[in-house]
Amino acid sequence: MKKWTFFNDDYIEAENALLHFKDLSFQRGYGLFDFFRLVGDQPLFLDDHLDRFYASAEAMHLKIDFSRAEIKTVIQNLILRNNLPGTGVRLNLTGGYSADGFTIASPNLTISQTTFSSPSKDHMENGISLLSYPHVRQLPHIKTTDYIMAVWLQPLLKQKGVDDVLFHQNGILSECSRNNFLLVTMDDRIITPHQNILPGITRKKLLEVAAKEFEVEERTVTLQDIREAKEAFITGTIKQILPVARVDDVVFNDHKISNQLRHCFQSAYINS
Amino acid sequence: MKKWTFFNDDYIEAENALLHFKDLSFQRGYGLFDFFRLVGDQPLFLDDHLDRFYASAEAMHLKIDFSRAEIKTVIQNLILRNNLPGTGVRLNLTGGYSADGFTIASPNLTISQTTFSSPSKDHMENGISLLSYPHVRQLPHIKTTDYIMAVWLQPLLKQKGVDDVLFHQNGILSECSRNNFLLVTMDDRIITPHQNILPGITRKKLLEVAAKEFEVEERTVTLQDIREAKEAFITGTIKQILPVARVDDVVFNDHKISNQLRHCFQSAYINS
Repeated sequence: MKKWTFFNDDYIEAENALLHFKDLSFQRGYGLFDFFRLVGDQPLFLDDHLDRFYASAEAMHLKIDFSRAEIKTVIQNLILRNNLPGTGVRLNLTGGYSADGFTIASPNLTISQTTFSSPSKDHMENGISLLSYPHVRQLPHIKTTDYIMAVWLQPLLKQKGVDDVLFHQNGILSECSRNNFLLVTMDDRIITPHQNILPGITRKKLLEVAAKEFEVEERTVTLQDIREAKEAFITGTIKQILPVARVDDVVFNDHKISNQLRHCFQSAYINS
Repeated sequence: MKKWTFFNDDYIEAENALLHFKDLSFQRGYGLFDFFRLVGDQPLFLDDHLDRFYASAEAMHLKIDFSRAEIKTVIQNLILRNNLPGTGVRLNLTGGYSADGFTIASPNLTISQTTFSSPSKDHMENGISLLSYPHVRQLPHIKTTDYIMAVWLQPLLKQKGVDDVLFHQNGILSECSRNNFLLVTMDDRIITPHQNILPGITRKKLLEVAAKEFEVEERTVTLQDIREAKEAFITGTIKQILPVARVDDVVFNDHKISNQLRHCFQSAYINS
């Protein structure tokens, strides 16, 4: 069966979604995206993702030639055409074909549907391991395609036998490579970094769910806070809520509240 | 007349040098490049550029499937086929078609020939203006395609009426958006930042030329050093040596040594 991608102004076969290497995303790494998942054939948190996509585009000086209603229609049509329930949709906007290879041009828009791997049962039950690393994403509040440090670090993470990286600057935590990071304190508060992070949508929804039962604090969180915490977990569109088993040499055996929050989140949004 | 680009393993028409949007350079900004100019039909500083290209690829965990001798043959063939003297050649290597959109894959290699605009007579004679801005390129020693901050700042630079940006961190200078930065001190020493910079090839060659007549220091250079300097200039493949007329509110009217160095550089390498 054919798979379709929306490319600038038309639905084309996904395999033909080609860009000339003159595009500014290729030449200068200038692009942005957003990604949401389908529950069945229904987009999850679509309005939040569109809010962020349009905000990213504006912040990056790129114009989206479609209204929000038009983009929604395109997404609906794409989902109908592809008939791939439970997959994800990626909205991608590049700097366009720049005459001088540097100046922002008319963006290229791609809306594509992709499968993704859910977290393993082992990761869900026993948690993932993280390595702390000094770095702050440039323009961290914008969902750019700049993941160069996160990708570049993959061989090191593999060598160290850890699953992902946790960025900090002078001990002040920000986020993982593609996920927000949260801690449960000894007195059952949920704390999470408030600066130099991508405003994650799963993070936002989780904090809303968590606030019904726990005290929630968006604040400065440090490497030292990890040593003093009871539990750690991450949030993200693909991983949803996943416990953390280890950050560097700090081990977490308890994932009770993390698991509770995952169940609350899933009851509220996924299995409702 | 057809223009050719070398794409992975073959010479193709330049306009057909297309990449699927699954490439890691589009998805995650993961790519690197190098760029050299032709003097007539002869590559300038080819060995230095190939040294840097292979070093960048190794540092970025990307494998180039061709030996240095093979790449040289490809470049020679491309120059012969295109017959575009005085233009530039861009070598580009991406993270490849990643199955999961994150893991480094088999790179896509592009070698393309492009025209470029030489600096204007006004810039050559009267110099360019710079705005200092706090930022350090991530992985600054590698010639990645990450210019997201430099491109993102373009509207601000335009609004401020300046030509380019000069990055610093806590007052310690690094480099301009695509050029190295140098100062002439009141006692005629040439000083230039030694850390958090791309090791520019024009910078290296210029320093060799300059060292014959001046004391040269690669060291920590600060915003304060600008205030105490006699002249400022930039180096780069396209701009070669270009005087700086202004950094923020510091004005340079004197470009004597900068001009002298440009003439020495051009005599040594371009018009020899």
